[in-house]
Amino acid sequence: MASGKKLINAPDDVVNESLSGLCLLYPQLEYHPSKRVVLSPDWKTRSGKVAIVSGGGGGHEPYAAGFVGSGLLTGAITGPVFASPPSNHILHALQCVSTNNTAGILVIVPNYTGDCLNFGTAIEKARNNGVSVTELTVGEDCSIPMSELGRTGRRGLVGMLFVGKVAGALAERGLNLSSVAQYAEIVTNNVATYAVGLTACALPGQGRMFHVLDDEMEIGLGVHGEAGYKRMKLTSASQVVSLMLQHILKTLSLINGESVAVIVNNFGATSQLEQGIVVHEVVMQLGCRGIQPLRVYAGPLMTSLDGAGVQISILRLGDHHGTSLVSCLDQATDAPCWPGSVYSVSLLSRGVQGTFKPASTGDANKKIAKVGPTLNEEGENLLRKCLKRACMAITAKENYINELDTGCGDGDCGTTMRRLAEVLRARFWIQGISLSLENLPLSHPSSVLTALSAIAEETMGGTSGAIYSLMFTTAAAELKLPQCGQVCPLTWSQAWRGGIDGILRYSKARLGDRTMLDALDPACREFESNDFSGGLRRKALEKIAKAAQDGCEGTKHMEARSC
Amino acid sequence: MASGKKLINAPDDVVNESLSGLCLLYPQLEYHPSKRVVLSPDWKTRSGKVAIVSGGGGGHEPYAAGFVGSGLLTGAITGPVFASPPSNHILHALQCVSTNNTAGILVIVPNYTGDCLNFGTAIEKARNNGVSVTELTVGEDCSIPMSELGRTGRRGLVGMLFVGKVAGALAERGLNLSSVAQYAEIVTNNVATYAVGLTACALPGQGRMFHVLDDEMEIGLGVHGEAGYKRMKLTSASQVVSLMLQHILKTLSLINGESVAVIVNNFGATSQLEQGIVVHEVVMQLGCRGIQPLRVYAGPLMTSLDGAGVQISILRLGDHHGTSLVSCLDQATDAPCWPGSVYSVSLLSRGVQGTFKPASTGDANKKIAKVGPTLNEEGENLLRKCLKRACMAITAKENYINELDTGCGDGDCGTTMRRLAEVLRARFWIQGISLSLENLPLSHPSSVLTALSAIAEETMGGTSGAIYSLMFTTAAAELKLPQCGQVCPLTWSQAWRGGIDGILRYSKARLGDRTMLDALDPACREFESNDFSGGLRRKALEKIAKAAQDGCEGTKHMEARSC
Repeated sequence: MASGKKLINAPDDVVNESLSGLCLLYPQLEYHPSKRVVLSPDWKTRSGKVAIVSGGGGGHEPYAAGFVGSGLLTGAITGPVFASPPSNHILHALQCVSTNNTAGILVIVPNYTGDCLNFGTAIEKARNNGVSVTELTVGEDCSIPMSELGRTGRRGLVGMLFVGKVAGALAERGLNLSSVAQYAEIVTNNVATYAVGLTACALPGQGRMFHVLDDEMEIGLGVHGEAGYKRMKLTSASQVVSLMLQHILKTLSLINGESVAVIVNNFGATSQLEQGIVVHEVVMQLGCRGIQPLRVYAGPLMTSLDGAGVQISILRLGDHHGTSLVSCLDQATDAPCWPGSVYSVSLLSRGVQGTFKPASTGDANKKIAKVGPTLNEEGENLLRKCLKRACMAITAKENYINELDTGCGDGDCGTTMRRLAEVLRARFWIQGISLSLENLPLSHPSSVLTALSAIAEETMGGTSGAIYSLMFTTAAAELKLPQCGQVCPLTWSQAWRGGIDGILRYSKARLGDRTMLDALDPACREFESNDFSGGLRRKALEKIAKAAQDGCEGTKHMEARSC
Repeated sequence: MASGKKLINAPDDVVNESLSGLCLLYPQLEYHPSKRVVLSPDWKTRSGKVAIVSGGGGGHEPYAAGFVGSGLLTGAITGPVFASPPSNHILHALQCVSTNNTAGILVIVPNYTGDCLNFGTAIEKARNNGVSVTELTVGEDCSIPMSELGRTGRRGLVGMLFVGKVAGALAERGLNLSSVAQYAEIVTNNVATYAVGLTACALPGQGRMFHVLDDEMEIGLGVHGEAGYKRMKLTSASQVVSLMLQHILKTLSLINGESVAVIVNNFGATSQLEQGIVVHEVVMQLGCRGIQPLRVYAGPLMTSLDGAGVQISILRLGDHHGTSLVSCLDQATDAPCWPGSVYSVSLLSRGVQGTFKPASTGDANKKIAKVGPTLNEEGENLLRKCLKRACMAITAKENYINELDTGCGDGDCGTTMRRLAEVLRARFWIQGISLSLENLPLSHPSSVLTALSAIAEETMGGTSGAIYSLMFTTAAAELKLPQCGQVCPLTWSQAWRGGIDGILRYSKARLGDRTMLDALDPACREFESNDFSGGLRRKALEKIAKAAQDGCEGTKHMEARSC
């Protein structure tokens, strides 16, 4: 998306419409469109509880409005895209949340010049009106070395969410303004955030704010499209996370044995897949450094329009305040975009390592269960011979089948089938079971077909593997039914039919679609036409084979159907 | 991001690592890495409750694993990127959730050939093992006309989430398998989804699967990078949503007066801002068509890696089943990625229109409150004269100030200030108050500066507006203090100092940074050096003006500091 094209109406309306959308998703949020203020449903009835207010420019959705709700923000003010809200909008929010409430307001301000000025003006005006307000400016970006910073100081990034969550939880518990502010400041002083971008963002109606080459990444870019501190070759997620953690850990002087909470923030256009990988890397690497991530949150939380990249924000939980900060993070909130869940809290208090213990499969040394009717020794030998000959025929015809598959398929059908045959003739391990012609439980045909199903799935793969696996499975089910104690020709015909029915049940292929069904079905019908009273004669078998061959030839004139 | 570059490690590991990430965020989820199966924390203790299982290829995160949790899915199986999970992984999930539980399993299968085959095989195997399983294949994509569909039928898209949510809620209530399946089927038969893409996605380690021009969009593209049904010029969000709704409403034969639930699904790289706008449009337009969206959900729920675009999925709630389907959607779930919240349910049961009613501002015909010490008539006249002369001076110097601003600023400082002056001389409406020199409450200087603060903010905008607004606000606070009943020269000097202090408090600017403070401060100090006993003489005023002028000239040799 080099152009940064977008699904919008007029560029001037984007923030208002998007806030409207949020409040339509969560209609209990109260939206004051003319002021772009979003209020918690309980804003009028919180008397005695400190109100928490935050905000900033638009383009960072869902921050701040998506975090409005009991136990988090009481109100949020959003400005135009990447611009501070005007002070009279902020003042409106402060006036609302102080209605019927003298507990006071904690205002959490992102550290940008415009926000500091406008929030400051509103706070002064609110104070002029007799409202008790404490201001806390948050700037926790550690992407840029202190030496390179102007007096403006560090930028406020997604670490603000930690501040709001802790403050909101404490306000909900009824702590007074100075206590809430004190804890909020502890959080502010113990959080650091680092950003890496893969692309810049694009303002609505405009192109990307700068270009990052396909093999590069931008270190320390801001959420308003501010260019980063430097540019580097894009490496693996593991190396990128390592670089980010290194700076954060140094900034916070975090050492072995400490506990932290983590936010992985998605800039907006990073896939959910990648987001999960970054979370995985962060937790793994913190674990390797002896740092315990007690809580981890992730999502597009404070975005930068359609930028691709992530921020990692780490909050030191510390010995002194650790318990209460975690309890604040865990405290329930109704704010709709808070990524925490009851599942965020491990029930087992297991360590980092424990989380990754693969589930015990109990597969080791498992044998194929011998189930269903049996074959006598003669039958076993015959089955072994049939399987062997089938394998040889498949292997011999590999190239021929590949050729047939070229044009209508991707020309690998013969190879795929050869893999099945090869494995059956060799020794193959699957799910802890050793499989090969030599150790198949030939006395129990149902078990043999169950084993074939597993081999087909593991070795052939793709749709072919799935179809053969399905056919063997449903055929095996028929062979398990104890009609006659021993497996007899009738059972085999029923198994054959079961295999065909299985394919028909789960694929969309039908007779006449130029598939293997067009050979399997007429042959099976020929098989079924016998009365089986005296076993199967050679002549009957030849007729079955001919029916298959005729069916196969008949497909030459059929049109293949996509299914 | 033309290249689709990604923050990953090895392409083969992406799904496993991402699932690991999910289960690190929500450690109560149980992850079986070798099978890529995620299980609900209650999977072993649900005896008597039907289990709900779903899954499909990877690359669609958070679907399905993110929706595992009590009240939604009991288990989810994820395949490699865009490929069905093998049947033995699915079987593993089915075996797990049937442990200690004979209530049976509802398996929700996305309608793709590979998924149908592999889920089918696993289901047959599970049945062979005596497990009671009902299968429900979901294909609700209405992007492609029926006439163009192969026998495979409609693709399974995010509408599956509606199916899983309703089934999960009913299972939690203890309904038996056939009842749960019956309701799940009602949902399946009443949901339709339509997709529009702005970009194709890119497989890990590869480029985008196809190219959509910067001014085009792809109609009906699939979640695996399947090209769409046709390509059109990209228009406004409003028009795009209109087109999408038209197809969905036709597919479901939805008419005026019906109720629906809606999902707006983000393909993965669409910004949160745009996502909100699409929600806004969908609800507005459904309202215009007389269709009531009782519940609306949005998010990156079933993504297509880093594709940009949205799907709209609509579930008809209907007269007959309406109530119970809504109650299922509202029922609490611990599944971490379910976008519903207690706030999803409007407390007021207000209609669509009601949701948008702008909050009453109560501003109409408001007058500026007259507060603080007053001026006598002579003082009023003097103040009027001063303001008028200041306005004239500013207007006359517009170009000169713009020139000074070129190079260090963006050359519009004079114009910005001229807007303030013009408005003051004209008549200006703000927040329902008519403002102009003629109707300013000149008898009350504090109120005048409060009005100036509002005008500066509204007309100047940006950082300049914020600074002047702040200065007037903090100066007004000083003028409000009733030191001497009437405003006297001492009060003015204190107001001046208050204005400067306000700027210093909330901006990072300091004396010597080449800002207006370098003129304001020396002049204010000169002002303060008077003893004010006999008012202010002309000579004292001239000295103040000279101090300002000297301060201003002094900035020529200063280096501007970014703040």
